[in-house]
Amino acid sequence: MTDFSNGAAWIKGRIVPIAEATIGVTDWAVTHSDVTYDVVPVWDGAFFRLVDYLDRFEASIAACHMNIGMDRTEITRALTDMVAQSGLRRAYVAMVAARGTPMIPGSRDPRECANHFYGWCVPYVHVIKPDVADAGARIWLSDTVRRIPHNSVNPLAKNYHWGDFTQGLFEAKEAGFDTVLLPDDAGNVTEGPGFNVFAVKGRSVVTPQDGVLHGITRKNAMEMCAANGMDVESRALPIAELMEADEVFLSTSGGGIIPVAQIGERRFSNGAAGPVATALRAQYFERLADPAYRTEIDYPG
Amino acid sequence: MTDFSNGAAWIKGRIVPIAEATIGVTDWAVTHSDVTYDVVPVWDGAFFRLVDYLDRFEASIAACHMNIGMDRTEITRALTDMVAQSGLRRAYVAMVAARGTPMIPGSRDPRECANHFYGWCVPYVHVIKPDVADAGARIWLSDTVRRIPHNSVNPLAKNYHWGDFTQGLFEAKEAGFDTVLLPDDAGNVTEGPGFNVFAVKGRSVVTPQDGVLHGITRKNAMEMCAANGMDVESRALPIAELMEADEVFLSTSGGGIIPVAQIGERRFSNGAAGPVATALRAQYFERLADPAYRTEIDYPG
Repeated sequence: MTDFSNGAAWIKGRIVPIAEATIGVTDWAVTHSDVTYDVVPVWDGAFFRLVDYLDRFEASIAACHMNIGMDRTEITRALTDMVAQSGLRRAYVAMVAARGTPMIPGSRDPRECANHFYGWCVPYVHVIKPDVADAGARIWLSDTVRRIPHNSVNPLAKNYHWGDFTQGLFEAKEAGFDTVLLPDDAGNVTEGPGFNVFAVKGRSVVTPQDGVLHGITRKNAMEMCAANGMDVESRALPIAELMEADEVFLSTSGGGIIPVAQIGERRFSNGAAGPVATALRAQYFERLADPAYRTEIDYPG
Repeated sequence: MTDFSNGAAWIKGRIVPIAEATIGVTDWAVTHSDVTYDVVPVWDGAFFRLVDYLDRFEASIAACHMNIGMDRTEITRALTDMVAQSGLRRAYVAMVAARGTPMIPGSRDPRECANHFYGWCVPYVHVIKPDVADAGARIWLSDTVRRIPHNSVNPLAKNYHWGDFTQGLFEAKEAGFDTVLLPDDAGNVTEGPGFNVFAVKGRSVVTPQDGVLHGITRKNAMEMCAANGMDVESRALPIAELMEADEVFLSTSGGGIIPVAQIGERRFSNGAAGPVATALRAQYFERLADPAYRTEIDYPG
């Protein structure tokens, strides 16, 4: 029996343990970070909102001028077979479109590369550990590192350009915080490594619109806020407005809704998870169980 | 006999054909493009200015807060053994420091990853084909894509964040140009995919200082210009000044000095390689043969 407990990958039609899943060191996916990808959660044996994640993945591939030679049915089958074989019932499932290497040796033309698809899954990833999230996360707002701007790298095509996040994470961790949030050059808040951010003021909630990934969990959060009778706005969010919020929370496919207890020296809700974010956190986990959003996986044996 | 004609790699102490050189798909080198690297040319059986490339590589590793557990002697031995075994006498030799994966499963802390080194070499890479370079390259100056700014990703630590270059290359190739040059948000020129840029006006030459990699071939070019009696300045280079230059050229470890015949609609030197750049191009190839800069490789058999 092959051990898939640490995860599995689908590479060129083969399903292998995650430890054996590799990519060539000269693939432009590595040497140019010329990749777009998406990550869909599997929760209690079903994909959650798979169609939304696939919609975004296909839009990202088009934005990157790639052709992976697989349609949605084939991608779905690859991911489903992989997760089923892994046996993982709560998983973080990545689908990746890579530029590949030039079909004409020595070419430096991205149009001449053999694009390809691979997938991998590992046990469900929490961007913030659940016990920390329950209590409210502590966030470092960098004042030195800026999010890569949208006119350099398109944030809507989910990508691996994390150099800014990594630098910010070093700052955050050295200062004793859980994760980092990056501003842009105009003094607005953008996003953090793997999450969007929301500011709650009274019955209103605001999340940044430009220069950020439009997360699927961001979409869930906006829908849940609207269903709770809140006014939801997607627009520029100045740092000053964020710091004057009643509550702040993060949204991520790696853990759902994360209440924020503190940003830098500023404490929210007396340094605890606030009531709005705590309610949304519970509602997100309820959504994960909603058959309307679930694509059940047929596991072997 | 193992076939190394397409290149070789050094991975965890083993030397393998380039086609077998891989990295795990979950390594943060891939998923966060959390990598720094350098590339040293091998020309006619010797490394060129190896000390300069190693100096920069070690500075990049420090800037990225990595520890690859190998000192300069060990890196040099790995690269030398690899190139010797490959048999390649003109090669593009990459040395890579990768973040790795967390030593504590589930960690999102870059301080908790097992950093590692690998190297690879392939037959010498020309960023611009030699016949095109001899005649003068045609460059697309993007007016939509901006170089990733230095306050997002440190350009001095050589990195694989090429999303801006890739987008620019698509524009350039679709417009029928050889490669792309990116501006910054302030209207200054920065760099292109794999090269620095120089503007010649009379006996003066200017190259951008900030927001760019400080290339070793850039250093060669500055030294050669000074030796030729030119005034050399490293400072902000406005687009308008670039377009009013007598001549423009590129510098790259993948081909040396590349005369530029055209940027967008603007032709330089009547659309041909200019005399200053052409002379520097020849001088660079002479430097490659200078024993003072060469570290000879002892090939087997």
